[in-house]
Amino acid sequence: MLDRMSDAALPPDRPDDHRHRRRAILETAARLICEKGYEGTSIQDIAAACQLTKAGLYHHIRSKEHLLLEIMNYGMDLFEDQVVTPVLPILDPLERLYSCMERNLMLVTEERSKEITIILHEHNTLTGEARVHIDARKKRYVRLLEASFAEAMRDGTIRPVNPTVAAFSFLGSVLWTYKWFRPGGAISREELVREMKHVFFGGLTVAAPAAKPRPREKAKRAQPARPKARPRR
Amino acid sequence: MLDRMSDAALPPDRPDDHRHRRRAILETAARLICEKGYEGTSIQDIAAACQLTKAGLYHHIRSKEHLLLEIMNYGMDLFEDQVVTPVLPILDPLERLYSCMERNLMLVTEERSKEITIILHEHNTLTGEARVHIDARKKRYVRLLEASFAEAMRDGTIRPVNPTVAAFSFLGSVLWTYKWFRPGGAISREELVREMKHVFFGGLTVAAPAAKPRPREKAKRAQPARPKARPRR
Repeated sequence: MLDRMSDAALPPDRPDDHRHRRRAILETAARLICEKGYEGTSIQDIAAACQLTKAGLYHHIRSKEHLLLEIMNYGMDLFEDQVVTPVLPILDPLERLYSCMERNLMLVTEERSKEITIILHEHNTLTGEARVHIDARKKRYVRLLEASFAEAMRDGTIRPVNPTVAAFSFLGSVLWTYKWFRPGGAISREELVREMKHVFFGGLTVAAPAAKPRPREKAKRAQPARPKARPRR
Repeated sequence: MLDRMSDAALPPDRPDDHRHRRRAILETAARLICEKGYEGTSIQDIAAACQLTKAGLYHHIRSKEHLLLEIMNYGMDLFEDQVVTPVLPILDPLERLYSCMERNLMLVTEERSKEITIILHEHNTLTGEARVHIDARKKRYVRLLEASFAEAMRDGTIRPVNPTVAAFSFLGSVLWTYKWFRPGGAISREELVREMKHVFFGGLTVAAPAAKPRPREKAKRAQPARPKARPRR
């Protein structure tokens, strides 16, 4: 009834209403799928949570698998709008990486899009072309990170490292945050951004004797018998 | 029939057989749950994949939720045996952290236990006491990492950072690996360990001018008008 009222009897949605309703459906479905698993969530559950009938929900979606693809595409849209697009014009590769980390952390610690993030990164339930499509969108971000690390190495602003390992270490540190960080807890979002940049880049940025990467490991190999050097404080 | 042969008609299992069979059931169930989701996997599916009847499977397990708890406990056992227990006797906190990273990376890139790792870190399907129990086991590892970072800071072998953010950045970099690393690909496991240590600790270990943490940020704040310093090469 509520559904017939809102979906059929009312005049056609304006584009903004439609976008707003679509987003609400995707966010509600994401929350349910996170709670009950993809297999454990029925179209009926999603319709009820959206205060729609099943038929009313099918007015907005094609199928359960297509809905999952839509959730992931919506997650990637959010991600590209809030992280990728704004950093592309940054010319300095290290500044670009700093900005990526800050923006990505802000996005994954945002309560409202939390479930979307979880589904994007944890639910490998898509198959076939849909999966290929989402994987390709994710890969573009990895390539941006790798290219930025490689560029910063050429500039001499970070030490020589394997750009793939650097990119996935960055992603791991940043994305893992949705698993442990709680807004309103002991660490604020701003503190998180500052500290994670400090932890992650502290080592990548070239500190004073730029010609000596991995000083600790080198020292160990070269002088195995000497007592362990303690840094000056 | 196969089940009656192996489970009932044969003489009682020796303890080793029992352990071996239990492990095989947990690994098979983990593989199915990763493929089809927890809700999408029935006890019947698991029994069939183990070449047991449903009744035969219930000889080994209590319920589907208890099986999930057993998979997670098995994952935590593997983890503690291969990562935590061997590093505890290492006195130097930085060496302890190096060893943690190496051992943890070796574990999460091992094909055989891959699904166990995924379930341990992605499936929040446990509820009530079972969940509290697994969360407490995970938390012990986080505390070990935090304590080791704090100790290394007191020793002066790493720069002052927030130990919680350091611990979860470490965990994120290391655990995210199961999502992207493919054995036999462009990067070997040994290379992965070496490069990730290099990326992650490169910055944490105190490099030559130990008295100047965050040189880049400091420089920016202190001398906003000077052109960007380029490191010597």
